[in-house]
Amino acid sequence: MTPESVLDYLKSHQQRFVDDLCDYARIPSVSAQSAHTSDLKRCADWIAHRAREAGLDPEIFPTDRNPIIIARTPRNDPRKPTFVVYGHYDVQPPEPFELWKSPPFEPRLEGRNVFARGISDNKGQHLAHLNAVEAWLKTGSELPCNLTFLIEGEEEVGSGSLQRFLPDHRKELACDAVVVSDNGIPTLKHPALTYGLRGVAAIEVRVEGPGRDLHSGVFGGTVDNPALVLCQILAALRDSRGRIAVPGYYDDVAPLSAYERRQMAKLPFDAEKYRRFLGVRALNGERGFTPEEQRTARPTLEINGLTSGYQGEGSKTIIPSWASAKLTLRLVPNQKPAKAIAAVVRQIRKLCPPTVRLTIRRGHGGEPYLVAPEGALAQAALRALKAGFGHEALLAREGGSIPIVSDFKRHLKVDTLLLGMALPDDNPHSPNEKFSLDAYERGMRMSAHLWPELSSACRR
Amino acid sequence: MTPESVLDYLKSHQQRFVDDLCDYARIPSVSAQSAHTSDLKRCADWIAHRAREAGLDPEIFPTDRNPIIIARTPRNDPRKPTFVVYGHYDVQPPEPFELWKSPPFEPRLEGRNVFARGISDNKGQHLAHLNAVEAWLKTGSELPCNLTFLIEGEEEVGSGSLQRFLPDHRKELACDAVVVSDNGIPTLKHPALTYGLRGVAAIEVRVEGPGRDLHSGVFGGTVDNPALVLCQILAALRDSRGRIAVPGYYDDVAPLSAYERRQMAKLPFDAEKYRRFLGVRALNGERGFTPEEQRTARPTLEINGLTSGYQGEGSKTIIPSWASAKLTLRLVPNQKPAKAIAAVVRQIRKLCPPTVRLTIRRGHGGEPYLVAPEGALAQAALRALKAGFGHEALLAREGGSIPIVSDFKRHLKVDTLLLGMALPDDNPHSPNEKFSLDAYERGMRMSAHLWPELSSACRR
Repeated sequence: MTPESVLDYLKSHQQRFVDDLCDYARIPSVSAQSAHTSDLKRCADWIAHRAREAGLDPEIFPTDRNPIIIARTPRNDPRKPTFVVYGHYDVQPPEPFELWKSPPFEPRLEGRNVFARGISDNKGQHLAHLNAVEAWLKTGSELPCNLTFLIEGEEEVGSGSLQRFLPDHRKELACDAVVVSDNGIPTLKHPALTYGLRGVAAIEVRVEGPGRDLHSGVFGGTVDNPALVLCQILAALRDSRGRIAVPGYYDDVAPLSAYERRQMAKLPFDAEKYRRFLGVRALNGERGFTPEEQRTARPTLEINGLTSGYQGEGSKTIIPSWASAKLTLRLVPNQKPAKAIAAVVRQIRKLCPPTVRLTIRRGHGGEPYLVAPEGALAQAALRALKAGFGHEALLAREGGSIPIVSDFKRHLKVDTLLLGMALPDDNPHSPNEKFSLDAYERGMRMSAHLWPELSSACRR
Repeated sequence: MTPESVLDYLKSHQQRFVDDLCDYARIPSVSAQSAHTSDLKRCADWIAHRAREAGLDPEIFPTDRNPIIIARTPRNDPRKPTFVVYGHYDVQPPEPFELWKSPPFEPRLEGRNVFARGISDNKGQHLAHLNAVEAWLKTGSELPCNLTFLIEGEEEVGSGSLQRFLPDHRKELACDAVVVSDNGIPTLKHPALTYGLRGVAAIEVRVEGPGRDLHSGVFGGTVDNPALVLCQILAALRDSRGRIAVPGYYDDVAPLSAYERRQMAKLPFDAEKYRRFLGVRALNGERGFTPEEQRTARPTLEINGLTSGYQGEGSKTIIPSWASAKLTLRLVPNQKPAKAIAAVVRQIRKLCPPTVRLTIRRGHGGEPYLVAPEGALAQAALRALKAGFGHEALLAREGGSIPIVSDFKRHLKVDTLLLGMALPDDNPHSPNEKFSLDAYERGMRMSAHLWPELSSACRR
């Protein structure tokens, strides 16, 4: 149980927490731009200093690029469970400046929103956790767990330093679970635990025909056109029901349980609004599933790019020498990237006629991710969300990948709980990024409740 | 009948004809390069002067770009038929210079070949006709017809000036048929009349899905991928027998007669050599037709280019906003470009799902061409070919288009006889272009025989 004094502390310090948020957002910690290197160092110092003021013991680890901060609650108690809270202090580039209504590094309050680059992604979200822990520590309440904040400065440029850091610091980061608040919820009335992510696997398919582009008049009719062969192969990879037409492809796909489908059906979704937002004439996906299920819990095969022959103005009457396509598969639990790719490659080879040469290049892969939705950790997180936001908490999945989650699984052997505070209109990576002060406040309250809930789940 | 004196004249003047050919080829009349503008003028003067020496009355017509020459046999006799002989004095750019074994504008004799840019395409071929007519005129033999040489200087850059010239000079160019020697024959032992050409029609198909590239993780599964939709449409346009799967598409296709198929079967063809030359693993075309028939007398639908989404290095996990394809149809007699395009467009619209927006842009079109193979003109040309080359003459078709042929038909309302003298290894448009002196000599003899043969055909 969270002591009333902790919740009172949060309430009575709101203005200071907002001031802190604005101070943090004022630092232009743009990791993609080398001109900001000293700003990133300054930002790392700021969050380390802020952690010390909150009562934690921070350490700054220099890296080849931007520092990593580890900040721990004092007096580690090995009998208590330990949780890692992950965040990143670096931000996306603010460009194009002209589309911002106010300067990106001068936080501007409008109603209950504060506008600034990086304020939602991710400064506000991990600062909310830090504020909640401060409330526990400053009120002399005994936390039921040990906490380790892990804040990096390269998330927007691929987390290179952290990926090297993790295997070397397994011991310092040993924990029972990781908490990441770097994603979103549908509305303030629909707080949600993201318990599943899709994986990804990329391949490039190249079909080669004639040794050079051929005159389509002189030679056309006697040889297969590599662009058409490619189209025929790709067209055959999806059936009329919207399923991936590859033998064995669905063998490892974990079906959605009735509980999951019920939960997902509670997520607010307006098909017409969604359609207009995407700018398509009509939605279309795998038959028998809702759009929310299609985009988060079902595998896909997408063409990301097509290249062949002449692409300039007007026409050029050739049979192109070759054609290529970039493809990505989105994978769901319990698919494995290597096995899924192998099945697709096998089918492409089977579909390819002997008149052309086929080359397939395998690209990067990432595993899908799932926390047991009815398990103790997930259910504890749902209770904390409900207590923090004042509304029943839902279970959601994300269609994309959050690569760091797989890194935590690989190196720390633990699950990650994704407890986002961002709202759909926060504009991360876009001009006029903002963070809702209501989400900030409720996120802090959720975090205050999270530690006893998660700790009790670990003791079961 | 061609007088013996004419043939004797040709024989006894061979060295001078070769010297003339080399002089002509020495002028770098590269129409694509403005640095050569004065060379083109010099070249026009050269051929006009040469025509006067041969006994013709030349006139030079200035144009916006390069002069056009008309040279007529003296004393026009309205009771005789008239033929126009077309040629072009401009040449392709010689680049890349480093691949030439000798400088492109310094003609080099090796065996029975002379190497120089433009010597086969097209200086040698129309000069052969001019030499033959000189032989008639200088020996005092009475030509059974009036002849009009029409030599332009912009064929390699689209014949813009000639296209404007033709409608304004219909009267001066009125004739019974046009003779063009600007193409090839299989070997010296297989002289051939090209009696058919394919037409062409171009379209561009664009499929638009989402209003912008979408994150394939976040949104993938709920919307159709425009690249895949495009592939499915294009794949469905060709059936497993290699036919164009468009209702009504073959309605206007003139079937090959038994005579035509017998004639085409006599053309030398080595499938394995042809396959190696194209660099494909295997030939593939419409079932039931030989490669020669497939590439010259059957319609095709080719993808010339594909464009969609990300085409750079690595991968980008998007659903592309749009995808497009450039297509060309090759048409055969009696297909009409507009009607063929309409049928394909109709089928594409039918195949396109309502989830995407479809835009089709119609490009240039050119009609197929056919001279009745058993008609009097074609048969007369075959007799002249046989007399000139000393071997049975064959009937052939070309798979490509020769746009000027359609212009002659449109403006002068006459057929064109394509009597090529180039050999397959002449390297037109490539480094080390050459012309065979045997083809030159036999071409002159063919031309000497051509005028009585064609004239008698016109009198029938």
